[in-house]
Order: sequence, then C-alpha cells, then structure tokens
Amino acid sequence: MLKEMFENVKKKTPLIHCITNYVTVNDCANILLACGGSPIMSDDAAEVEEITSICNALVINIGTLNQRTISSMLLAGKKANELNHPVIFDPVGVGASKLRNETAEKLLEEIKFQIIRGNISEIKMLALGNGSTKGVDADIADVVTSETLDSVIAFAKEFSKKTGAVIAITGAIDIVCDTNNAYVIYNGHPMMSRITGSGCMLTAMMGAYLAANQENPLEAAASAVCAMGICGELAYEKLEETGAGNSTYRNYLIDEICNLTADKFERGAKYEVR
Amino acid sequence: MLKEMFENVKKKTPLIHCITNYVTVNDCANILLACGGSPIMSDDAAEVEEITSICNALVINIGTLNQRTISSMLLAGKKANELNHPVIFDPVGVGASKLRNETAEKLLEEIKFQIIRGNISEIKMLALGNGSTKGVDADIADVVTSETLDSVIAFAKEFSKKTGAVIAITGAIDIVCDTNNAYVIYNGHPMMSRITGSGCMLTAMMGAYLAANQENPLEAAASAVCAMGICGELAYEKLEETGAGNSTYRNYLIDEICNLTADKFERGAKYEVR
Amino acid sequence: MLKEMFENVKKKTPLIHCITNYVTVNDCANILLACGGSPIMSDDAAEVEEITSICNALVINIGTLNQRTISSMLLAGKKANELNHPVIFDPVGVGASKLRNETAEKLLEEIKFQIIRGNISEIKMLALGNGSTKGVDADIADVVTSETLDSVIAFAKEFSKKTGAVIAITGAIDIVCDTNNAYVIYNGHPMMSRITGSGCMLTAMMGAYLAANQENPLEAAASAVCAMGICGELAYEKLEETGAGNSTYRNYLIDEICNLTADKFERGAKYEVR
Repeated sequence: MLKEMFENVKKKTPLIHCITNYVTVNDCANILLACGGSPIMSDDAAEVEEITSICNALVINIGTLNQRTISSMLLAGKKANELNHPVIFDPVGVGASKLRNETAEKLLEEIKFQIIRGNISEIKMLALGNGSTKGVDADIADVVTSETLDSVIAFAKEFSKKTGAVIAITGAIDIVCDTNNAYVIYNGHPMMSRITGSGCMLTAMMGAYLAANQENPLEAAASAVCAMGICGELAYEKLEETGAGNSTYRNYLIDEICNLTADKFERGAKYEVR
Repeated sequence: MLKEMFENVKKKTPLIHCITNYVTVNDCANILLACGGSPIMSDDAAEVEEITSICNALVINIGTLNQRTISSMLLAGKKANELNHPVIFDPVGVGASKLRNETAEKLLEEIKFQIIRGNISEIKMLALGNGSTKGVDADIADVVTSETLDSVIAFAKEFSKKTGAVIAITGAIDIVCDTNNAYVIYNGHPMMSRITGSGCMLTAMMGAYLAANQENPLEAAASAVCAMGICGELAYEKLEETGAGNSTYRNYLIDEICNLTADKFERGAKYEVR
Repeated sequence: MLKEMFENVKKKTPLIHCITNYVTVNDCANILLACGGSPIMSDDAAEVEEITSICNALVINIGTLNQRTISSMLLAGKKANELNHPVIFDPVGVGASKLRNETAEKLLEEIKFQIIRGNISEIKMLALGNGSTKGVDADIADVVTSETLDSVIAFAKEFSKKTGAVIAITGAIDIVCDTNNAYVIYNGHPMMSRITGSGCMLTAMMGAYLAANQENPLEAAASAVCAMGICGELAYEKLEETGAGNSTYRNYLIDEICNLTADKFERGAKYEVR
C-alpha cells in the first residue's frame, strides 16, 4: 500500500509550492526533484496566491519566518484551502519564541492543514502550549521511547482529531497518525540529525506524496516518512564504505531518494500500524 | 572562437554582482568561482548601486523576487547601464504570476540587457505576453524540436531585434542568437533538469563570460551555454560510473566547470551557426 | 591547549544563533553540526532577542545585509551582551559600500564583540577606515606576507586593544590575537578560496568554539582557525585522489570537520605564538 504512494509521485510529477526557510531551501528543492516532484519557491504576498493556484500542494515551513512572509503564508494557505489543494505545515522551532508560537497558532486557526509534521517537542508545543524545544531540535526530555510510545500515539491521535490533520512526529521512532490509525515507523538513522534540513526535506517531500495521493493522506505521509528513513539507512551504508562526513551524507540522502525504487521501498520499509 | 571566450574568463577573473533567488544562490556563487569568476551577492537598495559599480557585470534573476528586491534590481540595472557594465536577465518563472510579468516588463523597459536567458516558455512570455509556463519549467507544448527549430530561431532573432539583447533559449536544444546569427547548441544532458538551479547557474556564469568578452556578447553567451552543456555531459558520465543521484550530480556539474580546459571545451562543443 | 578547545565543543554541543547571509547559510549550519555544535538561524526583529537568549553564542555576518536584518543584528547583539553570551562578528565585504561601512561601525559602537574575523582588507577597513576591499575578497595589495607579518600583528593587537575583541585575520597566513599574544597559523590551502563560504563557515564555527571555551577566547578562536586549516589541507589531499572540483571540495571540507579527531588536530596544527 505504502509503495503505491511512492509510485504515484513518479507518475504524477506534482508541482509543489514551498514557502520555506532560506537555510535548507536548496535541499528541499533538490529532494522534491529527486522524488519525482517539481518545486517552486515563492514567498511574496503579491504573488503567492497565484503561484499556489498553479501548484498541486503547498508546504509552509516557519524555519526562518519573518513578518513579510507570515502574511504570505496566510494568503497562500487560504487560497490553497479554497482550491482544495493539500497544505502541509512544518512548525520549525515552535516554542523557541513568541513570534513562532503566535504564528503557528494563527496558521492553525486560519488554515486547514492535511499534514502537520514536527519533532515531538514542536508537536507538543502546538498541541499543549508547552514542550521544551531546544532551538530547532527536540528536547531530550520529550524523546519517544518504547515506554512512552502508546501515550504519544494517544496524544497524537487526539491532536489529529482537534486539527483534522494527519500528525507526523518524527525522531528515532516516527509516528504518523490520523484519529484512528497510527503508523509507527522504525526506519531512519541517527546520522540524519547530523545534517541540517532532514526534517524540512521530509516535509517538502510530503507535499509531493500528498499531492499525488490526495485520497490517502495518512498513507501518503507514512510513505514519505518510510522513504526518507529507508534512504537515510541506505545513505549511511554508503557513508560507512566511503568514510565521508555529514556534508556528503546530505548528498547521499538526496541521491538515495533519487534512486529509490518500489522494490527497495518494499524491502526496506519497517513499520507497524497501531 | 568560443574557446577563447572560455579562456578569457580564466584570465580576467571578472567580479559578478548577482541579485538572485535564495534557492540556488550558493550554487551560483560556486559556479562563478568554478569558471574563474568571483561572485558578490547583494540586494539591498541602499547599496546595490555601489556594489554594482565595483563589479564587471550584473546578473538579475527573479526566481524568488519580492517587493524589496525589485527596486534594488531597477537601481542596480540602471547604474550598470550608466557605467556600461553588461547586464544579464534571467526571467525565472515569468508567466506564473502578475508580479513576475509586471516586474519583467518593467525591467525590460527600464534596463538595457546584453543577454536574456530563459526556457522557451519564459522567453515566449516575455516576447509575446503568452506562453504556458508550468511553474519554473518549460511547458511541454513549447518544447523546441528539429521541426520547430527554424521558427523558434526566427522568433528569437525578432526578440533580439526588439530588445537589443542576445537571446538565449535553453532546453534540450539551445538557441543563442542576436538579430543576425543563431548558435544552435546540442550539448547538455536531461539529468540537468533533475537538479534545481542549472538554469540559474548558467545565467550567473554568463555574467562572467560576458564581462570577460564584452566586445562579443553573442559568442560569450554561446560559449557559456556550450561550457555548461559539455560539463553536464561529463558530469553524467561520472554519474554513470558511480551510480549517484541528483544531489551529487549537482556537485559533479560544478566540479566539471571547475576542471574544464580549453582542450575539453574544443573537443566537446557541438553547435552550428544558422 | 588548542586541542582541548576542540574537544570542549564536542562535549558541550553549544547552540549557536546565526544572523547570516543567505548565500552560505546552509554550509554554516552543516559545519556547526559537523564540529559538534548546533545551529539556529533566525533574523526577524520580533524574535531575535528570545532566540539568542536560549543560545550559547551569537554570530553576526553582514554578507547579504539589508535594512530589515540590521536592526535584528543590533537587537540580538545587545541582548547577547546583556546575558554575557559571546558575540562574533564577520564584517563580510566591509569597504564595498557605505551601507556596510556604516553598519559595521554601528555594530562596533553598540555591541561588544568577543571575536572579529575577516580578511586583511576587511579588518583594515574596520580599523582604519580604509583598505581596498575587492568585493568580498582581500585586495592583493593587502596580502599578509612574511615581510609584512610583524607590522600586521602590531596593527591587529592595536585593534584588539581598541575593540576589546580577539582579532582574527585570515588568509594565506592567519593571525589571531588579543592585545598581548598573536597566534600565527600556517594551516590551510589555496583551494579554500575557490569555494564560497570558507570564511563564513569559519566564523560560524568560531561561535561554537567560543561558546564551549568562554574563558579562553584567544585560544578558542585560534583553535577554530587551526581546525579549519587542517581540514582544508585534508580535504585537498582527498581532492587530489579523486580529481573532483570546488563543489565537492566544499563537501570534503565540511566532512573533514565532521571527522576531525583530537589526534588529527594535534598532528596537523602548524602555528607559533608571537
């Protein structure tokens, strides 16, 4: 099932509008091309509604938000909602400043998101108004373990109910759920946290997966998480061979997404549904 | 002849002022260094005139344009014109929004460009006010083939006449022309469209080629297109050896520009003049 | 001694707030992760004070400064001073425009910096109000040689006295000094100037080194310069093996920082104290 989501991206070449941060934007564009989508980055209030209208999905990432782009996010999000284009939200660093908290809150109020993806601290912050974000990384106190897994799933399903969005909480163990079902995904590698942008890239890629699989948002999101995790593992195998470091690992990761096949996907995916 | 254009860049180390998008800006800077130029990126209205004054050419790219940088583009462009510095225009995504259309129009009215480079949809949009831009990629309906080649050349020569600029239309077949002559260039590889920024990088590099060859804008532009295409092919050969993906291909492409020699240029260039 | 500085970064994982340019920001983030730190990029006036409060050091880089971010730099810098967080300044391209000169002056007046790093032209411009910056590169007339070394050291110590900051002048020979002692560092490779961002990356990394070694700013800065230079050499060894170009060299450089050990540091460091 998840494999089909992956294949649909290749078939449909969805065009994804990203309003995203300037730190990882190039990697987001390249991973969208790698997975079979096509990126367009645009953030001026005067054009975002038109741009999003010609796209198949919108990804909003607040990594380096500023006053100018916040209004663009709102305009684009509302337009996408109006057109029934899927909208994905990555609340990077929410909890780290009032501006991020208020912006995230406003976005959640005014835009209907199909997927919200963050680390556990970010999602807790969104859902509960607390959580202990350490900059853009999850706080150690929040980490999902096999002991806390069930309660985190329950929490995520609750937040899905509240928002109507598929919730994706990524970390050592990834949880992707709607109100009823949770995919618990065991793919990935710790090296992914030694590069900037693995979260942003995943969110961007979710845009492509969701655009190509609008009728199955839960499976689309879970499939993107699996793909990223599998490729994180494959990239690490390559890293072990070559002895390279984190910069090259970033390239390997995107390369593996570029070279991922349905067969590798099938063999590599490690998940259960709860 | 084209080879000399290439060699002049290495000799003169031109300093290129880029007002460009934040998606591919790092690649543009690295390819300028790779080809023998030197980049400076600056986009604040309060300094662009001074910055462009100390540079040898100005590259304007509207990939992620916004209100703030539009006025900087106009200021820098006029100053460069005043100083007889060459100015190159990359109308990324024109046709995708009113803002892009109006900005492109205004830039064409107020600035004299020596080279305008885009895909066929973008150039058609500029010249005719239509064309079917699909985001930042050319629309399939617009693609240049051996059947349409002659009519596209005629169209491009006409647009060159209207603007006074060398027109570079890049795609599977590249056309670079002034009012009289057209270089039709057969270098390049489809893999170049699987990375973000191959167009932007080419435009940035044209800045260096033109600055080092001001008396020959047509040959300078054609030479940059050849160089990029040759290196796209060489990079693909390397990709086949290593089995890497698009992220590494981007590195290979810039690497090949860095390692390009007059000899490789001579052997690799595939073009005719019509 | 310098080696311990290096080791402390790995132990303490300092979180570094960067207000930096959009050209090299991704490389700065990845090199911070490579060396053992953690980056957060944020530049909106509404949040920079909060963001810098949760960080261990602040890095201000004026590479693509604009009116909006200048006020953010001032706000963040003052807040960091108030909290006794170290602040590092990279005056990219100062001398190239009035805006850069005035901004640099204002920052020096209103913020206490622990380290100021630039090329010789930039530091001369800051200290003397002249120097012949050629865009973002040092002017050839300013280059530090064994003949001019003593006078440059005297000049740098004087500027350290005036500013209270450790002064780092990087180039073929690197000088890092406070009012009393100067580390003269002979590591590095000319290839480092063929990529964009080697200076910016070094400054970002200094943020991590200083945050982890607040009691020893001189040694922290010198240690970061050594680390960068050693890795520039190791990366070049790799480049010679593979025959790659500047884009891959950038990856090698960050990779080597990622894989640097105390032992490699010890064996590789080439410096004297004057």
